[in-house]
Amino acid sequence: MVATVEQLAALVSGRLVGDGNVAIRSARPVDEAGPGDITFIENERYAKLLRTSPASAAIVGPHFRSKRTPVKDTLAVIEVDDPIAAFIMVRKHLSGASKARWVGVHPQSWVAPTALIGPEAAIYPFAYVGDQAVVGEGSTIHPGAVVGDRVRIGRDCVIHPNVVLYPDVVLEDRVEIHSGTVLGGDGFGYRQVDGRHVKVPHTGRLEVGSDVEIGANCTIDRATFEATRIGEGTKIDNLVMIAHNNQVGRHNLLCAQVGIAGSCKTGDYVVMAGQAGIKDKTVIGDGVVVGAQAGVHRNIPSGQQVLGSPAIPVREQRRLFQMIARLPDMYKQLRELTAQIEAVSAILPMTPSHDGTVGFDDGDGAADPTGF
Amino acid sequence: MVATVEQLAALVSGRLVGDGNVAIRSARPVDEAGPGDITFIENERYAKLLRTSPASAAIVGPHFRSKRTPVKDTLAVIEVDDPIAAFIMVRKHLSGASKARWVGVHPQSWVAPTALIGPEAAIYPFAYVGDQAVVGEGSTIHPGAVVGDRVRIGRDCVIHPNVVLYPDVVLEDRVEIHSGTVLGGDGFGYRQVDGRHVKVPHTGRLEVGSDVEIGANCTIDRATFEATRIGEGTKIDNLVMIAHNNQVGRHNLLCAQVGIAGSCKTGDYVVMAGQAGIKDKTVIGDGVVVGAQAGVHRNIPSGQQVLGSPAIPVREQRRLFQMIARLPDMYKQLRELTAQIEAVSAILPMTPSHDGTVGFDDGDGAADPTGF
Amino acid sequence: MVATVEQLAALVSGRLVGDGNVAIRSARPVDEAGPGDITFIENERYAKLLRTSPASAAIVGPHFRSKRTPVKDTLAVIEVDDPIAAFIMVRKHLSGASKARWVGVHPQSWVAPTALIGPEAAIYPFAYVGDQAVVGEGSTIHPGAVVGDRVRIGRDCVIHPNVVLYPDVVLEDRVEIHSGTVLGGDGFGYRQVDGRHVKVPHTGRLEVGSDVEIGANCTIDRATFEATRIGEGTKIDNLVMIAHNNQVGRHNLLCAQVGIAGSCKTGDYVVMAGQAGIKDKTVIGDGVVVGAQAGVHRNIPSGQQVLGSPAIPVREQRRLFQMIARLPDMYKQLRELTAQIEAVSAILPMTPSHDGTVGFDDGDGAADPTGF
Repeated sequence: MVATVEQLAALVSGRLVGDGNVAIRSARPVDEAGPGDITFIENERYAKLLRTSPASAAIVGPHFRSKRTPVKDTLAVIEVDDPIAAFIMVRKHLSGASKARWVGVHPQSWVAPTALIGPEAAIYPFAYVGDQAVVGEGSTIHPGAVVGDRVRIGRDCVIHPNVVLYPDVVLEDRVEIHSGTVLGGDGFGYRQVDGRHVKVPHTGRLEVGSDVEIGANCTIDRATFEATRIGEGTKIDNLVMIAHNNQVGRHNLLCAQVGIAGSCKTGDYVVMAGQAGIKDKTVIGDGVVVGAQAGVHRNIPSGQQVLGSPAIPVREQRRLFQMIARLPDMYKQLRELTAQIEAVSAILPMTPSHDGTVGFDDGDGAADPTGF
Repeated sequence: MVATVEQLAALVSGRLVGDGNVAIRSARPVDEAGPGDITFIENERYAKLLRTSPASAAIVGPHFRSKRTPVKDTLAVIEVDDPIAAFIMVRKHLSGASKARWVGVHPQSWVAPTALIGPEAAIYPFAYVGDQAVVGEGSTIHPGAVVGDRVRIGRDCVIHPNVVLYPDVVLEDRVEIHSGTVLGGDGFGYRQVDGRHVKVPHTGRLEVGSDVEIGANCTIDRATFEATRIGEGTKIDNLVMIAHNNQVGRHNLLCAQVGIAGSCKTGDYVVMAGQAGIKDKTVIGDGVVVGAQAGVHRNIPSGQQVLGSPAIPVREQRRLFQMIARLPDMYKQLRELTAQIEAVSAILPMTPSHDGTVGFDDGDGAADPTGF
Repeated sequence: MVATVEQLAALVSGRLVGDGNVAIRSARPVDEAGPGDITFIENERYAKLLRTSPASAAIVGPHFRSKRTPVKDTLAVIEVDDPIAAFIMVRKHLSGASKARWVGVHPQSWVAPTALIGPEAAIYPFAYVGDQAVVGEGSTIHPGAVVGDRVRIGRDCVIHPNVVLYPDVVLEDRVEIHSGTVLGGDGFGYRQVDGRHVKVPHTGRLEVGSDVEIGANCTIDRATFEATRIGEGTKIDNLVMIAHNNQVGRHNLLCAQVGIAGSCKTGDYVVMAGQAGIKDKTVIGDGVVVGAQAGVHRNIPSGQQVLGSPAIPVREQRRLFQMIARLPDMYKQLRELTAQIEAVSAILPMTPSHDGTVGFDDGDGAADPTGF
């Protein structure tokens, strides 16, 4: 699709500066854009890139003009409050209306007679929907996805290819689950009996709140008795593991390869960076930030930022990292001091007022009380 | 299903104290149980929760009465040796007999003409069973699972949805593999030839012993020549990686996101906590416990518990963690000592018996032998 | 299949020493080989194993004879330059010609009418090929694999069971993707608006170069705007995560459970050991080696080897590990020095030439300038 800069400015409710008749064919980032393209500048630090860019138009922020960045006369500019959002809208517009979504139950899928499929839902080939499962209005079950018995999926959910939902999983509305993720599997719980690990049956379930998005190849286990829960609006990256009985709060961001052991609880707006690990039964307060590769082994109060393994407040950890880096110097200084004290002790017995004994430590870790 | 407390006491061979005629509809943990529910107390520490619980009955341990914990008169109590096991039995009973298991080969599956499917086996829609594969009596191949050529699956195994078994994998009896797990893939082995990584063919196989359970989205590679092996009774959590040629012992517990590099060997009853990593060719003795996020880079003798990266015995590691936490104090103390020794050296030249030189270290890390 | 040692020597162009008429039935590693087997010795360090091996023949390296290792008279020996490569060739020969590859589009697959399937391609049951997708000549789409709309797959690629390729993924020639891996998923990008995480649409794609091999259950996300790229000849182990916008170089080796955050760039011939993590936007030079469990948080120049979290050059890190191990000794020595300095300070006031004050640090971290 082709649009003029004027049409695009109207689309994003922006202020046009320059020639509105320039024809734009596609929207590309500034280092890739050429003639006929519209690009964008995220903030004014990158504005100078526009001087040399062959792009025909650019979307910029509100402070762009005040900086008086010189740009080519031929560059048409659209000023908006949020350049990235406007760029994404323009890009979507230029790539053409996406084709109408396919809906229906494909004959090469398998849907149990007792399952309920809502209106406008789509069940693709090789998708499997079990007994008494419910797929809400407008939801999509992509190829190879498996929806277990009694699973309940809300409205407008997207279950990507080869996802597995074990029996009794509950997804609220607008939940998106990426490919290969396994939800509601058995928790890892055993009791040792006569030298063998005997499985603790997991008869609970997994409940996922509205507007949750879960990345690819994650695993979230169901509860032993009641429910593992993922709070509304929480976003989870790829290859994340959340064990049985966890109660994850709302609007958390859990980055790739994070692992949370069983029966933890997180507050709202918690952020965990990549490869962090959380010990079982840990309670993490609202707004906590856990650093990459951190190992959290005790409760974290709200608002704290932690780092390291074992994890401690980030400022303390950074200080320890600095101290560890200085260890070779500390070790050298310790050797020097030892030499100096030996030198001093060699002098002292020579002083006339001294009785000749030197009260050095006898090695038991305490100063010798009888030395002087 | 509804049962009286008396019927439930008989079911679990427990001793009834109180009114056996109370009707029970469901079994729930103590913080969720209400009227009409039976709950349980894992040990006497939690017994006080029963004072206020609205539950109608409780399963308790053998020492409950001797503690004389006051409970409501209306609470019916069943005394047993193992409250959790009894509770699970009661819960299963009250949730009704599970429906009869479906068996047979579904017409929407694909089974090679040369495959052998045992009696009472179940092959679900979109399951694929390759040439000369064998599925033992009573085993279940769930939707989307792929059983490669010449795979041999024993009796009463459960292969959950979307599992992939590469050719030649062998599973003994009562093995359970959770969704998304990939068994018997190529090992990661290359030789560099003329600047390119040329693959070392992996013509070995993977053998999994009886009563092994493997969680979701794990990967276990087959051997270069002979067999990667997982010993009888070992239990593996989600997202665990076990590389080619490993020989994992019996009754191990490997927690989530553990990674074991190639050609290692573990004894029996080894436990590895979450996100631990093991270097290739490492030998780990019987009963070893590897801490969370540990990095094991050398052999560990039987019975040892290790922690940290690089991993060392847990008591030594805890001491090092304490020492690291004290580093800022040590650093401060070192500065103070340095100042003190400078002060002392400033005095010493004033002493009449001294020649005025001060034998401080010349910075080469050794005391100056010519100082005095 | 059975072959004589003479026939096998001819097959691998090797030099026969001993009886060429011995019949060989199978090829096995030295600790597993028995009568009727041929084995191999990777290098002369293991040559002594041949003294006691019951194998009937062995493949050895060029320096074997010069070492004059005594072996059984009955052991036939084939000398070659590359014993492993020759052994693999012999093993493949003895296991018989693999059966002809099946080709075609299976009726239980689903292929969009607008998809293009090249000659000699194989589309297995339950594989799904989307709109306008292209599968190149000789490529194989195994059971349960999902090829999204507009995906382009080159020649002689192998897509193992249950792999998912999101729309617009591009694979060049001879790419092999192992089971359960998800390529081209949405990147993990959100902007917080009114307390909710609003998704940044990912309209870019993923491009994978020729001769790349990717292990099982990996995830590689597509770019926000342009392309995430994996360079030619790079090999990736299992459970690896590569985030959006990454530009991975050529001939990299990325071991299991590595995680690379968004928008990083690696040079050629980079090696990352297991469980290493890379911070977003990091640039890693040619030939860099990142140690196991390392946490890389800044750019690494070409050729450097790094270790630890935070990662630093490996020699420095090893020194720090040694220093940390000595911390208990350093702490003890510090206590001893403190005791000694106290002892010295107790003497010094007694010296006649001194005014009686002691200039010790007042605790502000600097020597007291007024002390003397």
